[in-house]
Amino acid sequence: MILLFGGTGYLGGAFRLELQRRELPFRNVSRSELDYTRFDPLLTFLRANQPEFVINCAGYTGKPNVDACETAKADTLVGNAVLPLTIATACAAAEIPWGQVSSGCIYTGAKIVESGRERVEKDLTTPQLRALLENSPDWVRGFTETDVPNFSFRDGPCSFYSGTKALGEEVIRGVGRSYIWRPRIPFDEFDNVRNYLSKLQRYAKVYDNVNSISHRSDFATACLDLWAQRAPFGIYNVTNPGFVTTRQVVALVEKYLKPARRFEFWASDAEFYQVAAKTPRSNCVLDTTKLLAAGVKMRPVLEALEAALQNWQPENKS
Amino acid sequence: MILLFGGTGYLGGAFRLELQRRELPFRNVSRSELDYTRFDPLLTFLRANQPEFVINCAGYTGKPNVDACETAKADTLVGNAVLPLTIATACAAAEIPWGQVSSGCIYTGAKIVESGRERVEKDLTTPQLRALLENSPDWVRGFTETDVPNFSFRDGPCSFYSGTKALGEEVIRGVGRSYIWRPRIPFDEFDNVRNYLSKLQRYAKVYDNVNSISHRSDFATACLDLWAQRAPFGIYNVTNPGFVTTRQVVALVEKYLKPARRFEFWASDAEFYQVAAKTPRSNCVLDTTKLLAAGVKMRPVLEALEAALQNWQPENKS
Repeated sequence: MILLFGGTGYLGGAFRLELQRRELPFRNVSRSELDYTRFDPLLTFLRANQPEFVINCAGYTGKPNVDACETAKADTLVGNAVLPLTIATACAAAEIPWGQVSSGCIYTGAKIVESGRERVEKDLTTPQLRALLENSPDWVRGFTETDVPNFSFRDGPCSFYSGTKALGEEVIRGVGRSYIWRPRIPFDEFDNVRNYLSKLQRYAKVYDNVNSISHRSDFATACLDLWAQRAPFGIYNVTNPGFVTTRQVVALVEKYLKPARRFEFWASDAEFYQVAAKTPRSNCVLDTTKLLAAGVKMRPVLEALEAALQNWQPENKS
Repeated sequence: MILLFGGTGYLGGAFRLELQRRELPFRNVSRSELDYTRFDPLLTFLRANQPEFVINCAGYTGKPNVDACETAKADTLVGNAVLPLTIATACAAAEIPWGQVSSGCIYTGAKIVESGRERVEKDLTTPQLRALLENSPDWVRGFTETDVPNFSFRDGPCSFYSGTKALGEEVIRGVGRSYIWRPRIPFDEFDNVRNYLSKLQRYAKVYDNVNSISHRSDFATACLDLWAQRAPFGIYNVTNPGFVTTRQVVALVEKYLKPARRFEFWASDAEFYQVAAKTPRSNCVLDTTKLLAAGVKMRPVLEALEAALQNWQPENKS
């Protein structure tokens, strides 16, 4: 039996659906049933029930966005660093393998290859990065799993949210046997406040940048594939291969959904941060070579985006 | 056998001496011998060696003072919240009781009793509190172990150091069986950069405030007494009963050590924070009723202070 924590959340829901589709026996555990944030009852439960695998989708994201984490530091730390460590140690003590939904937001920027040499470009502005992508797309590389996070408490400035996610990875690495799955900016065809495509349509102005992003069910499917195939434990970037600029995504939204509104962009990063954001945002390109080399399939990002927009399901307002 | 982590540190040294004095078999474990910050080797070690008790004095304090923690957030979190949780969970899994050196710096201010009603005075300035102490000393009460920390990420503003110490307590409460010992501002007769009496003498200007404080070996002795007497597990304020103003301490330093220098005080909290400190300092009064009711003896604060100054050992500069 597989245990699922946080299965009622946005990414948790995708795991639930995919586990059902695969007809894998699983139990979506609520905190009222088992307070899995507390070590003692968790370890007792694991020892008594001996699940074959545990999946943690629970965490603290901040509503409506990561700015909320700046004023909820304890909850953010507890959700994103303490909870993973609690689960990691309980699973290790009970000798149960598990997977943690982490995040790719612990990086910022991209890696640039020029004359065969790779360098990290952390402070590239979006127009600079976009120009580079348009002129020399082959020069741009994503961060791999061996790159040390560069949007973290150890390498700041960063948002408090990202700091805690990077810390969460740091503290569970080497504890027992675990997968650390990194999604980025989830989206799919179902209109939802957490869906990147829904958010984009609701922003008064759009923040232009470059990112690797994850189709929600592609993400859960790939994570479960890693476990099903008994891929080596460790960190995996789990985004749809490639990357997109916000302008590309907006153009696709306009093409497929033909919204009545026109999209306006913030004139610059400076304007965005001055008016609309309190804490720095992570925008980054991730490398998915490790995931693909493990034999896991993920659709290229544009294919996944177009499929989501072609099958778009507006939220039921009734 | 008792295991000691962080036994080479300032408070750790006091535990080492007191364990030796009691002729209790103990092992001062260094991180090179056993990386007790990592759950898997720690649990393996605990299971193999079955210590009867574990003491953790390791933590991250920031050098030369807590301001340094503001720019070392990850290390501060790892040392003060992640490490205690790692030890707590490993000890719980191996069913070994343990004690954590926490800190009273997770409170600020004092409690004031007026007309039989108790209220927390968080933002009392030092002159206000001092006036209160001089005029109505019976009105001032310390924080007890059931008071929720009020200098923490959950009840800020606080220093990052204090936030992580409060979080450390929060995350280990209810995990296995542990003592949480709270010292405050350690001092004793041995001149040392960590000794409050040494610091006071070296400050260019002194910050006037009101605090409960802990004689270093009184502290270690009281902590070990709690364990020796099998007092109930849980939180204990371990300061010398009572409280002192910095002016009182300076007067005693002048009386016993007769320093050539004259002590100057910051004109106000505002001046101190503007010139000498980056992050807010905790100044607080702690209640030691629970410790004393457990049958543990601690000298009153003035007695401990006078004894330290009477036996003052200047640091050997050779």
